[in-house]
This record gives sequence, structure tokens and C-alpha cells, in this order.
Amino acid sequence: MDNSTTQLRTPYLVFVGDECRTTYAKTGKGVADWRPELCAGQLRLDTAAADLGLADMTVSEAAQAGVGSLIVGTALVGGSIPDNWLATLCEAAAAGMDIVAGLHTRLSSIEQLREAADMGGCRLIDIRIPPPGIPVASGKKRSGKRLLTVGTDCALGKKYTALQLERDMRALGMDADFRASGQTGIMIAGSGIPIDCVVADFISGAAEALSPDNSPDHWDVIEGQGSIFHPGYAAVSHGLLIGSQPDAFVVCHAAGRTHIEGWEAYALPTIGEVIERTVAIGALTNPLIRCVGISVNTLSIPADEREEYLAALSSKYDLPCVDPLVTGTKAILSPFA
Amino acid sequence: MDNSTTQLRTPYLVFVGDECRTTYAKTGKGVADWRPELCAGQLRLDTAAADLGLADMTVSEAAQAGVGSLIVGTALVGGSIPDNWLATLCEAAAAGMDIVAGLHTRLSSIEQLREAADMGGCRLIDIRIPPPGIPVASGKKRSGKRLLTVGTDCALGKKYTALQLERDMRALGMDADFRASGQTGIMIAGSGIPIDCVVADFISGAAEALSPDNSPDHWDVIEGQGSIFHPGYAAVSHGLLIGSQPDAFVVCHAAGRTHIEGWEAYALPTIGEVIERTVAIGALTNPLIRCVGISVNTLSIPADEREEYLAALSSKYDLPCVDPLVTGTKAILSPFA
Repeated sequence: MDNSTTQLRTPYLVFVGDECRTTYAKTGKGVADWRPELCAGQLRLDTAAADLGLADMTVSEAAQAGVGSLIVGTALVGGSIPDNWLATLCEAAAAGMDIVAGLHTRLSSIEQLREAADMGGCRLIDIRIPPPGIPVASGKKRSGKRLLTVGTDCALGKKYTALQLERDMRALGMDADFRASGQTGIMIAGSGIPIDCVVADFISGAAEALSPDNSPDHWDVIEGQGSIFHPGYAAVSHGLLIGSQPDAFVVCHAAGRTHIEGWEAYALPTIGEVIERTVAIGALTNPLIRCVGISVNTLSIPADEREEYLAALSSKYDLPCVDPLVTGTKAILSPFA
Repeated sequence: MDNSTTQLRTPYLVFVGDECRTTYAKTGKGVADWRPELCAGQLRLDTAAADLGLADMTVSEAAQAGVGSLIVGTALVGGSIPDNWLATLCEAAAAGMDIVAGLHTRLSSIEQLREAADMGGCRLIDIRIPPPGIPVASGKKRSGKRLLTVGTDCALGKKYTALQLERDMRALGMDADFRASGQTGIMIAGSGIPIDCVVADFISGAAEALSPDNSPDHWDVIEGQGSIFHPGYAAVSHGLLIGSQPDAFVVCHAAGRTHIEGWEAYALPTIGEVIERTVAIGALTNPLIRCVGISVNTLSIPADEREEYLAALSSKYDLPCVDPLVTGTKAILSPFA
């Protein structure tokens, strides 16, 4: 991975603050679930705070354990960091840990934190800020193989599908790496580029930098963004698609969703429409692009009806169809292993 | 036009410096050609410098004439502003004129210029920096009508086609405004948004802000960017297309061009492919979108063969086909006037 990607220092201390609501700590939960081997521990400021299943650890314990980064694993409602959180972040920075966050407030805009970072010689990493020096896409073919997750909408499992694909590929003995294109994904992977924060001209160039040349049998499993039919974010999906040059893609969908979330005037595209449009656009940089499976979040379906639902979709599109967190993704991967 | 667009103060003093090569002064030439009524004069540091056909004027004459902005109308090779230019820019800033440029070096990074601007109470406007507060696209239908110029490639006449369409629409008694999405266009129009400099998530939102609600018979003629088949810039074209919600589009092409300029491994798409893909993508936010004409730069064709060339294209696609700078665009507009 070249130097136009964000690179995080591991292992992590995952900071939960005093956040009790698990849904607001889902970034931290994602890191703990998908990369437990990168997590030295969690830091909670209150015993009632969300438990990510990691060892509780103080800043000084983390420093002794050689932690590289304190990861802010919670969403912050409102702009600024609460005072009782800030003191801990400063303590960690002064102890030499990089501070990593995806907040709207820039970490470097907080003077106290900046001073602590200077003292500790660490970095303040705003995960929303892309690394400098991203080039315009060249369109040149790269070696190695690539799979991209795409979607009928935002927020329906493109990241977790990609992570499960990576896990299952490795279990099948394949050489594979998850490539993160969004904030939480970058924290999980320890590197990546926040594609939606890149300046327009460089979207596809960022996607190229995210999955550079690799050995012929290696698979990059690239986290998708948005949807090619999304009235707000389709341009990001388009740029990521042609820059990724995927050989294969998996369409992600949430069972029961009928409209673009937050854009209720827009009906959700069908899975078939997404397949057709993705092939049409992706063929520009990789004429061999093809859909290899469908990944559905079936949470909204009664457990005893899921199998039938997935089988019906699989038959309709003549493609393997999985719920990655229920069935895994091996049904998609068997032709490749 | 709302406050998320860049707005320039007029009239202009167009600065040419000592640039003798007309091709390097083409921004200034564009402003002088398309908006002579906005130009108070030109400022040349050498009698051999390119002549834009405007009255020569010193800074103090310009100040007396009530000039609002000094526009740097030349491309700068290399990063920084030559010393003999800087002195004049500082003089204008100190006299209260906004300084407007599209250089890679940020104007505000030049201390001497910053001090002069503080003294004159003027703004230093880097046209590459989008205005703050651009929202994510809502996808909501807006009132008024819109025409977008699209292309088979970059740099083949999308801006000048849009400007000629505006000119011809007005001549036909139609209510029309050119909407600028690039640097030179913004200087010409006096307002706009540099779409390719906007952060990815906001491309389509910027396009929405660029052509806000208007009266039912009003036409926004929107300057296109890139090409939907461009391996580097297609995402920009896609975002601009769905945010613009055009009712009509004109495909721009350069006669004789066979490959994407600078990406020689990529064959140029056909005009037919561009029409089909633009309709497919644009229909998301405006199902009535349709191609209304073809605009070709025929410079590479002998003058006495142009008419036949355009007629053949017109017959092939069953659409009016013009060279905007040779024939004008009224053949395209007659069904609308």
C-alpha cells in the first residue's frame, strides 16, 4: 500500500468514554469484532459504558503495553469533545499514543490536545482527512484480483460483507486483504482512504491507490460506498468503481428496504438494475467485471424464513445469495477457492 | 444564486502580466470575448504582452473607474507569482480591488499580498477553492429548465458551447443564464462553483446549488465537466449530471479525436454511447432528460468540408449538429424558442 493511504499504528486502545449506548459505540465495536488481534484493550470512563469485550485498560497500562494508537470508538453528538474525555485523550497523547478519530471537530483545532501531542511526539489523526498527494486516476490495469462490494443503498452492509469475504477467503486458503474506503473501515483495517472526503477530481485516483499492484492470485476485497443509483452519493460510487477496476462484485441489500434511506422520493433500485449498471460502468476500466453474488442483511425477516428468502433471490438472479453475518460468504467464494 | 456559490465583484480589470503567448492568456481572452460588458480594461506589464482587445489601464485608472476585481487572466507555469507581477497585484489589492486567480499557489499564502489585501480591505479569491457550506444533494425537483453540455472527452468545447447557447437563447428572446462549473467559466460568469474541486460527497449538492429554483420559462445553461466515459474524471461528470437534473443536454465533441486525451489506452466513446449513458444516468433525477443536439469543434476539418461533416453527423443521430463558434447554436434552439 503506497503512501497516499492513511496508515495507523497498532495495537489499539479503543476509547469508549462514558458512552452507554452500543449503537453510538459501533465504530469501536466494529474494530473489536473484526480485528481483536489489533486491540490491546478498551478504555471506559464509566463502568456503565458500553463493553466491547476487550480488556479494560488505563492509559498508563496501555503505554506499558506498547499501544500505538488510541482510537475514539464512539460517535459524538454535537461538535466538541466533552472535558472529561479530553483529559484522557491528552494523557494518552502525552504518553506518545497517536489519537485517531473521525469527528467533525478537527483534533488539531483543540489547543490542549495539540500541546499534549507535541509533548508526546505523537500524531493527531483525523480519519476524515485524506492523505495528501492523491493523483488523478491513470486507468492503467493493475496486477492482482479485486472484488468490490456495491449496494442498492447506503448503510446496509457493504463494509461487513467485505470483511466477512476477507475472513472467509483466508479460511479457504486464499490470499486476501480488506481495503477500507470509509472511516470505520480504516480503523478496522489500520489503513485506507476515506473516499467520500477526497476532492472530486481525485476519487478514482484514490481508489487506484487503495488497491495497488499485487501478486496475481491476491484478492483485494474493497469496501464499497453509497450506491450507483443514490441521488446524493452516486458520483462517489462511480469513481470508486472505475478506480477499483474490480474483476468481481457483490451486490449488498437490506431485505424489506423499499426507498433510499433519507431520500424517500427515490425508490430503491432492484438488485438486477444495480448489477446491470455496475457492469456497464465498471467495464470501462475492466471489461471482465462480473457480479459473483448477492449479500443481504436479513435482520427484518423472521429467522425461520431467511433460508427461503435467500433461496428465492438466488434462483431469481442465478447467483449465490448469502446473509454474511448469518451464513457467511463461502457460497459466493466456492468457485474461486 | 445562493451563497454556496463563489461571487465575484465586477467590473473587472483583466491582468495579462508580461505574457506574450495568447494560449497562456486564454482565461483572460475568454472573459474579454464573452463578457466585454464586465471588463473595464486590461493591464499589461509589457507592450508585447497579449492584447485581449480591451482598453489598457493602470491600477490607479482602474481604481478611479470603480473596478471590483483584478482577474489574473493567464496560466502560470511553475508555482509562484513573478516579482514584477506581485508588485502590481499588491498595488491593486491595496487600492481595494479583489484579486481573483486560479493558480496552484494560494493567494493568501503570499504574505506581501495578504498585507496589501488587509490594507485595501479586499478579498483574495482562489477560484479553485469552493465556497463553504455546500450541502449533500437532496434530489428534489427544482423549478425552471436546465440544459447541460456533456462531452466525449475533456477540453473540447463544453464551456464555449454553453456560452454560445446562452448568447443565442437571449438573441431568440429566451430567458437564460450560463452557469459556470469551472475556473475560467466562473471568471466569465462572475459566479459559479468549481465542481471538480468540491469534496466527493458534495459534488451533486454543488450542482444543485449552481442552478437553484428559477421561473418556469428560465433556462440555466450549465457548463459540463469531463466525460461520463473518462477513466479519471467520470465521477465528476456523473455527480454534475444528476445534481443538474437537466431537461436537455448537448453532446460536445472534437472532430478527429480518437482517444481520451492523455489516456491514450482509452478509445473515445461514440456520440451515441455518450447519449445513451447520459440518458440512463440522468433519468434518476429527471426522467424527461433528452439529447437535443450535438456540438462539434471542427477546427481539424478543412473549412469547405465542415458543412458536409456536420450534415452527416446530424443525419446519423437525427439531431441538429453545430459548430458553435462557426454556425452558432440556433439550429439546436429552434424547437425551444
